[in-house]
Amino acid sequence: MRAPQRVGRAGLPERVTIWEVGARDGLQNEGTVVPLAVKLEFLDRLAAAGLGVVEATSFVHPKWVPQLADADELLAAMTPRPGVRYPVLVPNERGLDRALAAGVRHIAIFASATETFARRNLNRSLDEQFAMFEPVVGRARAEGLTVRGYVSMCFGDPWEGEVAVDQVVAVGRRLVDMGCEQLSLGDTIGVGTPGHVQALIAAFRAAGVDLADLAVHFHDTYGQALANTLAALESGVTTVDASAGGLGGCPYARSATGNLATEDLVWMLDGLGVEHGVDLAALVATSVWMAERLGRPSPSRVVRALANADSAD
Amino acid sequence: MRAPQRVGRAGLPERVTIWEVGARDGLQNEGTVVPLAVKLEFLDRLAAAGLGVVEATSFVHPKWVPQLADADELLAAMTPRPGVRYPVLVPNERGLDRALAAGVRHIAIFASATETFARRNLNRSLDEQFAMFEPVVGRARAEGLTVRGYVSMCFGDPWEGEVAVDQVVAVGRRLVDMGCEQLSLGDTIGVGTPGHVQALIAAFRAAGVDLADLAVHFHDTYGQALANTLAALESGVTTVDASAGGLGGCPYARSATGNLATEDLVWMLDGLGVEHGVDLAALVATSVWMAERLGRPSPSRVVRALANADSAD
Repeated sequence: MRAPQRVGRAGLPERVTIWEVGARDGLQNEGTVVPLAVKLEFLDRLAAAGLGVVEATSFVHPKWVPQLADADELLAAMTPRPGVRYPVLVPNERGLDRALAAGVRHIAIFASATETFARRNLNRSLDEQFAMFEPVVGRARAEGLTVRGYVSMCFGDPWEGEVAVDQVVAVGRRLVDMGCEQLSLGDTIGVGTPGHVQALIAAFRAAGVDLADLAVHFHDTYGQALANTLAALESGVTTVDASAGGLGGCPYARSATGNLATEDLVWMLDGLGVEHGVDLAALVATSVWMAERLGRPSPSRVVRALANADSAD
Repeated sequence: MRAPQRVGRAGLPERVTIWEVGARDGLQNEGTVVPLAVKLEFLDRLAAAGLGVVEATSFVHPKWVPQLADADELLAAMTPRPGVRYPVLVPNERGLDRALAAGVRHIAIFASATETFARRNLNRSLDEQFAMFEPVVGRARAEGLTVRGYVSMCFGDPWEGEVAVDQVVAVGRRLVDMGCEQLSLGDTIGVGTPGHVQALIAAFRAAGVDLADLAVHFHDTYGQALANTLAALESGVTTVDASAGGLGGCPYARSATGNLATEDLVWMLDGLGVEHGVDLAALVATSVWMAERLGRPSPSRVVRALANADSAD
């Protein structure tokens, strides 16, 4: 079987926007630097497969993410497809300058829900991170850009352990008030479970954040990513982050595990009859091609199953 | 983090029975025959970890499953733990004779929801399979044994493609009428999605089968197993099949993919606050130990994450 039987159910959105993060969140964890030409082909194949939002790269300092040191070159060389958004991660004002120079129209900032991760990842306190983001978001909005706010460690923190829902909402609320049009609630270490997901979404709604302004971002470290996505859809969320082929760190290396695989998400949405616009076969072919470039199999179960089915033909 | 944050949600069962199939459904797909002593230790460690139902072996003909050719020896040598059930798969009357001789108290039969799989797996038509099961179930019940009926290919069939819900219910209903106390609805090839799961359960309820008499059995071929389990719990199912470490065929080989990993299920249930009685650390240690015996890493995400965390201590 190349597709699931379609049996819908009540209480789910009719349509979901998949926010494809493979080329940024996926590749940034790859040790081997991927050539620019491969990145360009990857981005174009993702867009050609029907993904309407393809996060392209990041303007984080090359010292931290050497993989994405070619962000300026990549954006200069990229041919965008009509109707497709190519957001770029922007860590600070220097990054925003580069994004504006490159003609970027959609940016994302990366915030932490916890004190420890703010200090470790941003070298700032939880409060200080907002001072860093404020001019970025303000200037970006003044230039007519859209701004997404990633909130990381929403469901647990490797140093602090449990993270209070109220704390996550307080961080997200400040980002919305600052001008972020969408929040992506990230389970950076993959520990969350479906009740937690629904409680967090309910808390954001209670704090006055619209469902349309919330996205979810799950990692599959503990195998929970797709169940958590189902829970988020049940709560009415309509934007889901995913990574083609489950890219996002080698699944066999310590502490480095992948994002929710876009293909596994698409399979579930196809079965549920939820529209998404992606051509699964084209996406699987793209992930198989990318896995060959990276020299290891995709961790996506759907990619493995369908690639094996193809080779058995 | 060694445990998820506990955030329950309404509408789920308070307690779930995990029906552990690793020693039977898991091992039967392993090419290398596992020594009897290892199997005995595996069964005992599973029971010691708190699993209350540990499927022990199968009396299928050794020609078909050489891995379980030692079923009689295994049952003779096994020391059952008090309060733990050790069901055994019984394909036919000859198997039942062996089970009765071994003092087995709980058996399972294995039926097909589709014509093609009945012919390929049982060498009988869909209708003829019932004639084979009838004396097995009748005699077993007369001897005071409990009988579970596995229904395979409930969500799709590799040869027939889509499988109608009504057809699955008709097969399951005949097994219940014959005397099966529980049905295990199997997604043998892992293609099902959550709406399909809920539709099938609703159809069984409409056909007069109690929720308490339904179990679900998911394979993770397309990454859907845990999301489907969540859907089944939402529908009120309280028995879930799972395999320690995700045993059930090598995840890297064509068409052979694992069962839902017990550890990944336990992680979700722990987060949801649904009781199950299993000690996750003891179970992970068992799966790590078993993976070493089999010479390859467990496909369970939780096992990999926690085993890596341990080695990082």
